Amino acid sequence: MVASEIRALFAVASRPEIVSLAGGMPSVSALPLDVVGEMLGELTARRGSEALQYGSAQGDPELRERICEVMALEGVRASADDVVVTVGSQQGLDLLARIFVDPGDVVVAEAPSYVGALGTFAAYQAEVAHVPLDDAGLIPAALRETLGRLRREGRRVKFLYTVPNFHNPAGVTLSAARRAEVLDICAAHDVLVVEDNPYGLLGFDEAPLRALRADDADRVIYLGSFSKTFAPGFRIGWVLAPHAVRAKLVLAAESAMLSHSNLSQFAVREYLATQPWKQQIKAFRELYRERRDTMLDSLADLMPEGCAWTRPAGGFYVWLTLPEGLDAKAMAPRAIAARVAYVPGTGFYADGTGHRHMRLSYCYPEPARIREGVRRLAAVVEQELSLQATFGSTTPTATHGVDTPAPNTL
Amino acid sequence: MVASEIRALFAVASRPEIVSLAGGMPSVSALPLDVVGEMLGELTARRGSEALQYGSAQGDPELRERICEVMALEGVRASADDVVVTVGSQQGLDLLARIFVDPGDVVVAEAPSYVGALGTFAAYQAEVAHVPLDDAGLIPAALRETLGRLRREGRRVKFLYTVPNFHNPAGVTLSAARRAEVLDICAAHDVLVVEDNPYGLLGFDEAPLRALRADDADRVIYLGSFSKTFAPGFRIGWVLAPHAVRAKLVLAAESAMLSHSNLSQFAVREYLATQPWKQQIKAFRELYRERRDTMLDSLADLMPEGCAWTRPAGGFYVWLTLPEGLDAKAMAPRAIAARVAYVPGTGFYADGTGHRHMRLSYCYPEPARIREGVRRLAAVVEQELSLQATFGSTTPTATHGVDTPAPNTL
Repeated sequence: MVASEIRALFAVASRPEIVSLAGGMPSVSALPLDVVGEMLGELTARRGSEALQYGSAQGDPELRERICEVMALEGVRASADDVVVTVGSQQGLDLLARIFVDPGDVVVAEAPSYVGALGTFAAYQAEVAHVPLDDAGLIPAALRETLGRLRREGRRVKFLYTVPNFHNPAGVTLSAARRAEVLDICAAHDVLVVEDNPYGLLGFDEAPLRALRADDADRVIYLGSFSKTFAPGFRIGWVLAPHAVRAKLVLAAESAMLSHSNLSQFAVREYLATQPWKQQIKAFRELYRERRDTMLDSLADLMPEGCAWTRPAGGFYVWLTLPEGLDAKAMAPRAIAARVAYVPGTGFYADGTGHRHMRLSYCYPEPARIREGVRRLAAVVEQELSLQATFGSTTPTATHGVDTPAPNTL
Repeated sequence: MVASEIRALFAVASRPEIVSLAGGMPSVSALPLDVVGEMLGELTARRGSEALQYGSAQGDPELRERICEVMALEGVRASADDVVVTVGSQQGLDLLARIFVDPGDVVVAEAPSYVGALGTFAAYQAEVAHVPLDDAGLIPAALRETLGRLRREGRRVKFLYTVPNFHNPAGVTLSAARRAEVLDICAAHDVLVVEDNPYGLLGFDEAPLRALRADDADRVIYLGSFSKTFAPGFRIGWVLAPHAVRAKLVLAAESAMLSHSNLSQFAVREYLATQPWKQQIKAFRELYRERRDTMLDSLADLMPEGCAWTRPAGGFYVWLTLPEGLDAKAMAPRAIAARVAYVPGTGFYADGTGHRHMRLSYCYPEPARIREGVRRLAAVVEQELSLQATFGSTTPTATHGVDTPAPNTL
């Protein structure tokens, strides 16, 4: 249902007259498309009999070697043998849920959390226990408390699912100090960690942060993706997992799709081998930083009193909290009518909360459009506030029982 | 376990000194790779900002229109709205199992049946009830008897899984007369039909046979693929399903991988729109017919008395039955030592039978290699027969309880 809601929203949001701050599409037009095209053409002409053939379920060995070089930028030391190439990170999540989750199991995740992960966990009938985050990411004390409570309740916790860098949707990053603490807590409770890291190389200010996986090879399953650092159209992500998990993942991948696209894999492999990919990531970072700045400046200039938002140091998203009494979900149709789209916060919670929040993406629209979108959004919020002043609050209460604090950064 | 066994076999079979009659790889080198490369290059250079972007979970609308034109060759009238693009047919099978199968449900399938389907059904804890086939495909009387028995036993049958054309692995084709009968029987038992049809356009002698789906749009779910008519490297297959099923498939696909590769989809769409794809299929048919002829002639010339095999009118596979007392699975390592590989029949049965059978593929090796492979295989069988004459039979009995007759074509 959440997926359908968002799909309906995106269908409307793609109309040209609407400024969409909803989608998480990277700016692939910033790539040298002619160069990539030439590379693909040559690859197919020269080695098509292999590139257009079936591959293996685990993925091309040379690509897996390259993936290890990419992860080394975040301090990860790994063998290509423990990497499984996936159809984006999403397939990695699906395969992990498939091998780990039995109905009624618990997955611990940030509040809010990535909507695609929540959808997959729900599909496998996991129950999500949310743990709040703040400006420095997941709150260790809250994680400890939640794991303790779940243990006392005799619940089976399968893993902690976390997006440590430039969180989707919250835009925050887990601090270096907290990383060690999170690993310690999970070790103490013998809980695996699924580190979902599509944005790690897209930080605006400093070198990539050290991955959780870099400090615990046995406990952490790392998910990566080329969707944001190269292009999503290839659908190439990966899972780095401890050996026993990796073996199960390969069997699951084989059952799910037989083999991955060789063409896509060879394209990414060739791109990493022959193109200045680190320079390209730098270009992406500069492009997204400019857009982030535009969004933060526009929000500061235009949003009415009482709104709060996160200040991402990388990635694609700002997480905005409306003044008390407003409801981002109820407001969405009126925003569309005012020709601006966002994703209401409710999709990012498994417990029916999130009404006061929205995710704003700055990754895709040009800066002038971002500013125009924020202008339109501000006008909608103003109008809601004046309606509220006249008729009183429309905020619903949570539709489920769990009490999940909103990110207290907001 | 079956998957692992076959994987180990393929790893060995890919050594150059071994003639592999094991794999089902199409001869993609018969494609005009330079033309395909140029097409991909231009596509990326001209429309890369879309081709390298995220797409939808259901698949590109224009590609789905083209898919309907392809299916029209088999008498299928369908709306593009009811097509879901998948990562090969295998993902179609996985998504169908995901939405239909609860542990303990029954799936009815031919004996033998496609190993990838059996693996997926097992992954979702379905129990497979095999129904024998003969030269004219699935035997209707046996299907009726099996469905009747399952009904009496109160079992929940989710669907009949069938490969009607140029069966993998049996090489046989369901006759036109039997198609109506199979549909009638499934209607009488209110059982869905999953028609897996990757080889339908690769018949050697006549026009494509009318699909089961052409005569029952409500009951039949049709799986198609471009892996054999174009190339597997794109990983583009599809499911055509009744509306309510289609809607569930899209949600499942979204959860499984977010969206399909736009690049692959655009490549296939462009190929169908601008290249002489029907001519190319004709070229594939001629190539595969020559290889089938070589294999059948070689078998007739070289195999010892007591062996029997099917005579496929299309597709990739011959199904061979060894003389009484021999065991294709036990013999496989000795065949590898003699530098020839095949797939033992056991992988194609969910019930532990199939030891006397093997699948021989003629799709990939050149004719001279096929003949050499059969020569080596014949020598191995001769040797087994002389061992048997000296030491007696080594045939194991079925390791499970169900009594599945071998295809009586053999």
